[in-house]
Amino acid sequence: MIIHSRIEGTQLAGNLLGDPSERDLFVYLPPGYEEEQDRRYPTAYLLQAYGTTAEEIVNPPTDGQRWRPPIEDVLDPVFRRMGVPPMIIAIPDGWSRWGCGQWVDSPVTGNFEQYMLKDVVPFVDAHYRTIPESRSRGLFGFSSGGFGSWNLASRNPDVFGAMAVLSADSFLDMTHKFMLYKYLDSIWPEAPNGPIEGNEWSELVYDYAATYSPNPDKPPFYVDLPVAFPSGELIQEVWDRWLSFDPVVNVHGRLDNLRKLSGIMLDAGLHDDYNLHWGHRLLSHYLNEAGIAHEFTENAGNHGGRANERYQVSLQWLSKVLKHD
Amino acid sequence: MIIHSRIEGTQLAGNLLGDPSERDLFVYLPPGYEEEQDRRYPTAYLLQAYGTTAEEIVNPPTDGQRWRPPIEDVLDPVFRRMGVPPMIIAIPDGWSRWGCGQWVDSPVTGNFEQYMLKDVVPFVDAHYRTIPESRSRGLFGFSSGGFGSWNLASRNPDVFGAMAVLSADSFLDMTHKFMLYKYLDSIWPEAPNGPIEGNEWSELVYDYAATYSPNPDKPPFYVDLPVAFPSGELIQEVWDRWLSFDPVVNVHGRLDNLRKLSGIMLDAGLHDDYNLHWGHRLLSHYLNEAGIAHEFTENAGNHGGRANERYQVSLQWLSKVLKHD
Amino acid sequence: MIIHSRIEGTQLAGNLLGDPSERDLFVYLPPGYEEEQDRRYPTAYLLQAYGTTAEEIVNPPTDGQRWRPPIEDVLDPVFRRMGVPPMIIAIPDGWSRWGCGQWVDSPVTGNFEQYMLKDVVPFVDAHYRTIPESRSRGLFGFSSGGFGSWNLASRNPDVFGAMAVLSADSFLDMTHKFMLYKYLDSIWPEAPNGPIEGNEWSELVYDYAATYSPNPDKPPFYVDLPVAFPSGELIQEVWDRWLSFDPVVNVHGRLDNLRKLSGIMLDAGLHDDYNLHWGHRLLSHYLNEAGIAHEFTENAGNHGGRANERYQVSLQWLSKVLKHD
Amino acid sequence: MIIHSRIEGTQLAGNLLGDPSERDLFVYLPPGYEEEQDRRYPTAYLLQAYGTTAEEIVNPPTDGQRWRPPIEDVLDPVFRRMGVPPMIIAIPDGWSRWGCGQWVDSPVTGNFEQYMLKDVVPFVDAHYRTIPESRSRGLFGFSSGGFGSWNLASRNPDVFGAMAVLSADSFLDMTHKFMLYKYLDSIWPEAPNGPIEGNEWSELVYDYAATYSPNPDKPPFYVDLPVAFPSGELIQEVWDRWLSFDPVVNVHGRLDNLRKLSGIMLDAGLHDDYNLHWGHRLLSHYLNEAGIAHEFTENAGNHGGRANERYQVSLQWLSKVLKHD
Repeated sequence: MIIHSRIEGTQLAGNLLGDPSERDLFVYLPPGYEEEQDRRYPTAYLLQAYGTTAEEIVNPPTDGQRWRPPIEDVLDPVFRRMGVPPMIIAIPDGWSRWGCGQWVDSPVTGNFEQYMLKDVVPFVDAHYRTIPESRSRGLFGFSSGGFGSWNLASRNPDVFGAMAVLSADSFLDMTHKFMLYKYLDSIWPEAPNGPIEGNEWSELVYDYAATYSPNPDKPPFYVDLPVAFPSGELIQEVWDRWLSFDPVVNVHGRLDNLRKLSGIMLDAGLHDDYNLHWGHRLLSHYLNEAGIAHEFTENAGNHGGRANERYQVSLQWLSKVLKHD
Repeated sequence: MIIHSRIEGTQLAGNLLGDPSERDLFVYLPPGYEEEQDRRYPTAYLLQAYGTTAEEIVNPPTDGQRWRPPIEDVLDPVFRRMGVPPMIIAIPDGWSRWGCGQWVDSPVTGNFEQYMLKDVVPFVDAHYRTIPESRSRGLFGFSSGGFGSWNLASRNPDVFGAMAVLSADSFLDMTHKFMLYKYLDSIWPEAPNGPIEGNEWSELVYDYAATYSPNPDKPPFYVDLPVAFPSGELIQEVWDRWLSFDPVVNVHGRLDNLRKLSGIMLDAGLHDDYNLHWGHRLLSHYLNEAGIAHEFTENAGNHGGRANERYQVSLQWLSKVLKHD
Repeated sequence: MIIHSRIEGTQLAGNLLGDPSERDLFVYLPPGYEEEQDRRYPTAYLLQAYGTTAEEIVNPPTDGQRWRPPIEDVLDPVFRRMGVPPMIIAIPDGWSRWGCGQWVDSPVTGNFEQYMLKDVVPFVDAHYRTIPESRSRGLFGFSSGGFGSWNLASRNPDVFGAMAVLSADSFLDMTHKFMLYKYLDSIWPEAPNGPIEGNEWSELVYDYAATYSPNPDKPPFYVDLPVAFPSGELIQEVWDRWLSFDPVVNVHGRLDNLRKLSGIMLDAGLHDDYNLHWGHRLLSHYLNEAGIAHEFTENAGNHGGRANERYQVSLQWLSKVLKHD
Repeated sequence: MIIHSRIEGTQLAGNLLGDPSERDLFVYLPPGYEEEQDRRYPTAYLLQAYGTTAEEIVNPPTDGQRWRPPIEDVLDPVFRRMGVPPMIIAIPDGWSRWGCGQWVDSPVTGNFEQYMLKDVVPFVDAHYRTIPESRSRGLFGFSSGGFGSWNLASRNPDVFGAMAVLSADSFLDMTHKFMLYKYLDSIWPEAPNGPIEGNEWSELVYDYAATYSPNPDKPPFYVDLPVAFPSGELIQEVWDRWLSFDPVVNVHGRLDNLRKLSGIMLDAGLHDDYNLHWGHRLLSHYLNEAGIAHEFTENAGNHGGRANERYQVSLQWLSKVLKHD
């Protein structure tokens, strides 16, 4: 059963894109929740990927060549067919008009990290029978949602005790830098001037710039781009701001936090269309070097083709590492 | 809940390919079946597509780039999330070593129509609380499974009262005849001599020949091919045997039977990779010409991309047109 | 050296599409033509394919991802590097606003067969030192140009003594009938109403209808389409008119004419994107059955990828079978 | 007319791959060369791309889906149709069993730079009526041949006075670094152990390592790879050796040499499959910053699709900037 609420994202208010601060929040209650009125549950937060909304996860559009099942069809089998001990699953909204807030703080898209910490988690703990402790609170997500899981848990181990990181944005040098040049190609030979609707590269670059290298003093788009036009020179100072969000870069400074977590799971598809498995391998290598135990798996999927299955696997794993009643 | 049995396919025994006659049979029992011990249910038979097995529908392989959920994850939501009145769902095995028995009678691959009528249905009625009448018995299937649903119901309205035909093999002139020439290309300039493992066109052509134009007097492959080698001339007499199985051809001779059915549903994806929607449109036109009411829908899918969703929709519809207790 | 003229196509005048009757005519004069003022030469007519013009063959557009060399770069090596005995090569214009006149007579697109016979050939013979006899006159062309070569030579062996048929439109049942259904898909669910610019299937179907099944009594498009909308039923009577132009169909009635030719060459690529090699194989089979000698070759090309090389090979062959001074 | 010789590559002898030092050398003599026995000509050296041979440029294989014309069909029109003042064109062989010597010195693949300077150029000057001076000697090439042109001319302006750099390997950070990871994917999870025949990524990486980061002390493959297995960490010290060959990197240290050249032409396709146009833009930017005049053009091609046309354009340009008699 999924409960729909609208919550006020106080930490999103005033974002420069003018996106609404009131947001959807969906909460999945596991089988038995109604019957066992005194039982409390661990909570898993599902962070969405780039380009979608919490609403679309719950009620996917039907105009695609492939079916995306409603998330309820993915979650129910976890606790029924697979017999996983029950958890509450919260699905906050991370939408931005430029694609995704990337679950980080930005004056342009909104402070999504603070929103998770100060709006979403308190609301869920207040309205549902959660176990309101970090060791009973986990994160999971795919692509930008995996990236968000990494950054939220590795910065806030006192709030989130475990993370399942699925095909996360990482190793930006190899997986995202080329997008700057695809963007230049896509606007060539015109001058760049803000995101262009329907131009995928432009939308991606402006979304990342709005979240990783925002510049509130630079209207009307409020971003610094890490590439010069038309020369194509990389602007290293801006690019370094992007890299500070990259798991394979910031892992080195967060080892103490990472050691506090009850569990870290890294999973990616061997055929990831964006090669995000390259970053996962490197990240696992760095965790191993630091002696930090973690699950590391690779599946047969491309980018997204097995995401729903990996949600099921993630929840099976989270239910093991999170503390139950 | 899915119950696994092994049944003896008496009607498959002696097939010239030497495929086993003992087969898997899976039966899905809807929520509440256990609790309501006196209740009887309509039954929907799910016929599989070319190239798979009943076992793989229940436990799909995990080595693909995309996830195929276990069929239980598709069926449970029908009766839980969607609230459809419960039915029993039977999943017989139609596998052949050359791809699929196409759910028709052939001395080469086995008599799959008779197997359904004399082995499968009696077993299900004997072991589960079905309503053992045609008006409470339906068929559904995708691709070759839709083709099988059409042929079984349109020939046996006294056994099956309704059919949901999903992206069925049909209009073979436009959708299958070219395969004969792709096959010739694939073996060019060698002489054809039986199905070649890993050669998709060869496998398809021999499978169809084994089911549509078998020739027990022609060892070692026991088939007539409808194309001459190397000239590429169509052998009309053999091709006509294939066409006799084509829904857009045999519909004209089965109008009386079709009128006896409680329901006919035709559904195909607008982006079907094999253009099977072309046959669906023509079939619907002929049904309309004959004044036979039916559901006709087209979805946004390609061949297979929305099959699981269409199973859900089919069951919602079957539950309406089949008679419940 | 290529000479450009403009000629009046008296046989094209009055076409219902309103295409101009004055046309480009390019004539390639081989090395030595200027020096040997008394010498006369055989003539090869190059018929263009669908969707292009004589002008584009001589001066190809430069905006493509791949280079198409000017035809002079293809013809010069034939007589220099390859040392082929010299011929005159005439390049008439077969353009139609709907794609191509297909080199046949139609009140809608214009009488392209008559134009070849009464306008083009007489002009070339009058202005250049040709040998004005059928045994010194050949045709060659690729795709629709191969189709045109076939129909012109097989109907007028007294004018054209040889033909090199390259990847010609043929076996329409397998290679063109599906286009009718792609066209229906492309306009679905709207009603068809004439060719739609930028809609490839619509353009192809209307072009073929204008040339194969014109109907001057049916304004504003003056064509009969061989498929019904929206049912998708084939209209056999109209389709038969298309088939009458199909080499694998009309070969049977033209055997006497074909026997009069000095040479027939059939060549197609094994990887033809439109599977035109299927028709070539069948055509060769029928010629063999009739005991008509011919060259039959298959090359490693796709549709068009080796066309220029095949022009060189065709000219080498034509120079052998046509009579020189 | 093309003259074929075999020459001894004294500078290739002893290469660790054991490739032969005797090589093909093809020399194209322009129209009129035979007749004007006292005339001397500028010389343009055509450097081949990765994965081919001089022999294949002259006599391309005929088993491809697309025709590659013999180079004579590309060169003749330059001096006939286009009317370019005549030059001699030399085509040395740069083949290596691992793909290409990249026209640089390496103990593993052979000293291709020295071979050009000490074997090829002296032979051509000794046997043909060249103007044996740098201002009458130019280089041109596509892909690795453009890369070779850049490195040879920018290091030896006293030998080569001009270069036409076509779609050259450059900006390796964006265009080649990813290949290291594609290579890791391609051997995953096995350990890397030398180039694997038929594995494109493996072949590319080992070829570049053999030319850019050879290590004669490391049998049996004699290379340092710039990526660690299995971690995927970049080995910066080795990668820096690769970068030293990158035009966008070494341009900064060669400005004085570049100023000595009579002409620099940069040309790339806007749709280059390897994005080599990105490096061209950056290179042009750096040349502009240094005040070095040069031609900079972008064409509509993909990687290779317009290469022959660009050869024609390069020769037209080289004939202008090189000194004639």
